[in-house]
Amino acid sequence: MFDKIAIIGVGLIGGSIGLAAKKRRLAKEIVGVCRRESSRRRAIKSKAVDRATLDLPEAVKGADLVVIASPVGKVTEIAGACAGCMKKNSILTDVGSSKEPIVKAIEKLVSKKVNFIGAHPMAGSDKSGVENARADIFKNAVCILTKTRRADRKALLRLKRFWKSLGSRVLVLSPEEHDMRASLASYLPHAVSYALSLTQNGRSVKLAAGSLKDMTRVASSDPGLWKDIFLLSGGSVLRAVVSFAKNLKKLEIAIKRRDEKMILKLLRRAKKMSEGIHGK
Amino acid sequence: MFDKIAIIGVGLIGGSIGLAAKKRRLAKEIVGVCRRESSRRRAIKSKAVDRATLDLPEAVKGADLVVIASPVGKVTEIAGACAGCMKKNSILTDVGSSKEPIVKAIEKLVSKKVNFIGAHPMAGSDKSGVENARADIFKNAVCILTKTRRADRKALLRLKRFWKSLGSRVLVLSPEEHDMRASLASYLPHAVSYALSLTQNGRSVKLAAGSLKDMTRVASSDPGLWKDIFLLSGGSVLRAVVSFAKNLKKLEIAIKRRDEKMILKLLRRAKKMSEGIHGK
Repeated sequence: MFDKIAIIGVGLIGGSIGLAAKKRRLAKEIVGVCRRESSRRRAIKSKAVDRATLDLPEAVKGADLVVIASPVGKVTEIAGACAGCMKKNSILTDVGSSKEPIVKAIEKLVSKKVNFIGAHPMAGSDKSGVENARADIFKNAVCILTKTRRADRKALLRLKRFWKSLGSRVLVLSPEEHDMRASLASYLPHAVSYALSLTQNGRSVKLAAGSLKDMTRVASSDPGLWKDIFLLSGGSVLRAVVSFAKNLKKLEIAIKRRDEKMILKLLRRAKKMSEGIHGK
Repeated sequence: MFDKIAIIGVGLIGGSIGLAAKKRRLAKEIVGVCRRESSRRRAIKSKAVDRATLDLPEAVKGADLVVIASPVGKVTEIAGACAGCMKKNSILTDVGSSKEPIVKAIEKLVSKKVNFIGAHPMAGSDKSGVENARADIFKNAVCILTKTRRADRKALLRLKRFWKSLGSRVLVLSPEEHDMRASLASYLPHAVSYALSLTQNGRSVKLAAGSLKDMTRVASSDPGLWKDIFLLSGGSVLRAVVSFAKNLKKLEIAIKRRDEKMILKLLRRAKKMSEGIHGK
């Protein structure tokens, strides 16, 4: 599919892309770019890439596909560093979870000879690092590709084929539509999980059963990564939080008023939505 | 351990108590009491009890231990129906999740010849019914027994041994302390999960990944049961919701102000609590 793929940032997601692309033989050569010698060694040891280097321009040069899999707060900066070294008609993409601010900034930054298409594979783990990378992490996961006025049709189709080959179900959305949906489906659950964990104390956790365990699992996710996601997607995260707070308030008021009908109505509607999410 | 145990309400919890007590041979006879002929047949088919009847007075008569495992909204009423038929020095207990209102009401209701001890096994599932009952459901789960001024010491010790034999880790608390802790560790996660499900829409759920799936699972729980729990434990549930809303507001304000230090501080504190809950 490609002669050379460069993956910038060989962590959980970058490493998994490497493993999956190698397994499905999607490239003749996969080069990983790391920031530190220690992470370069870990990348090589994991066999997620054919070779790894600290030299970004060298790795990017001649690549048909450059995937920025660095922490979301660094994506735009790194795109700037890549763009100048990339060959004509190559594809630049990322895996950052916030699309509107990233896509806007990068489209301004890169010249027309490079085709930038934003991507967000909805896969991951509360564990990070290339040691936790797996070739099957994208299997049946949704991957969103962003379509803008500037996006090249052919590049979009090629990247779509790439992500399908990794096992994903690809959805093409505008960056704005992506951010609205991702805020509700991913950033909000994380914010709520963090807030729920903050509300517990040493005595309450002694009674932790399945519900609390389920609902605080994602609060073990990397604070640095999530600080960046919350800041980058600020507007849409805040809208999701406000919308959630209104629904919780409705339930609170119904309990306070002992309004049995309203409580039942809310819980039944929620149950229906939950069953839809779990494919029941 | 007992000659005769009567279980009122042979559903998920009542059925699991029956299966676990039979497996560990804790009684010569276990009688299930059902409200309808159809549930009586299901109880017998499940083999969770030795026999099942619709005749509550007959089942309760001569029992050393009577366990009320009916929906939480019915516990007090059923305790009233049981108390008069029970033999001297027998133990009456329940499995209702709200302890302060139940224990207060039942202690007023029963005569001194019957020893009432409230119980709340922190086990369950979003699935209900005797078909989902399992003998190992209480294994390593916390079971709270309530201690009040009126509680009989010997009965409390006997019931403690019973729940330990079912595999639980027993914790003895005042009804008030139980309700505060359970509100934070169980009712709040449920309320939050219901509100989170209500906030989703047909477009957002197409992006559902692990976090949303984890956090909306308990919103599939029975609306009728949870309406009763929310109403019975109203005060302590509302306090937990208010406390949670404050923490979410803190995070919201920090994101709005782009206060990186505060966001990181909150997420790190939450991560630590989450890791504690998951025994990391």
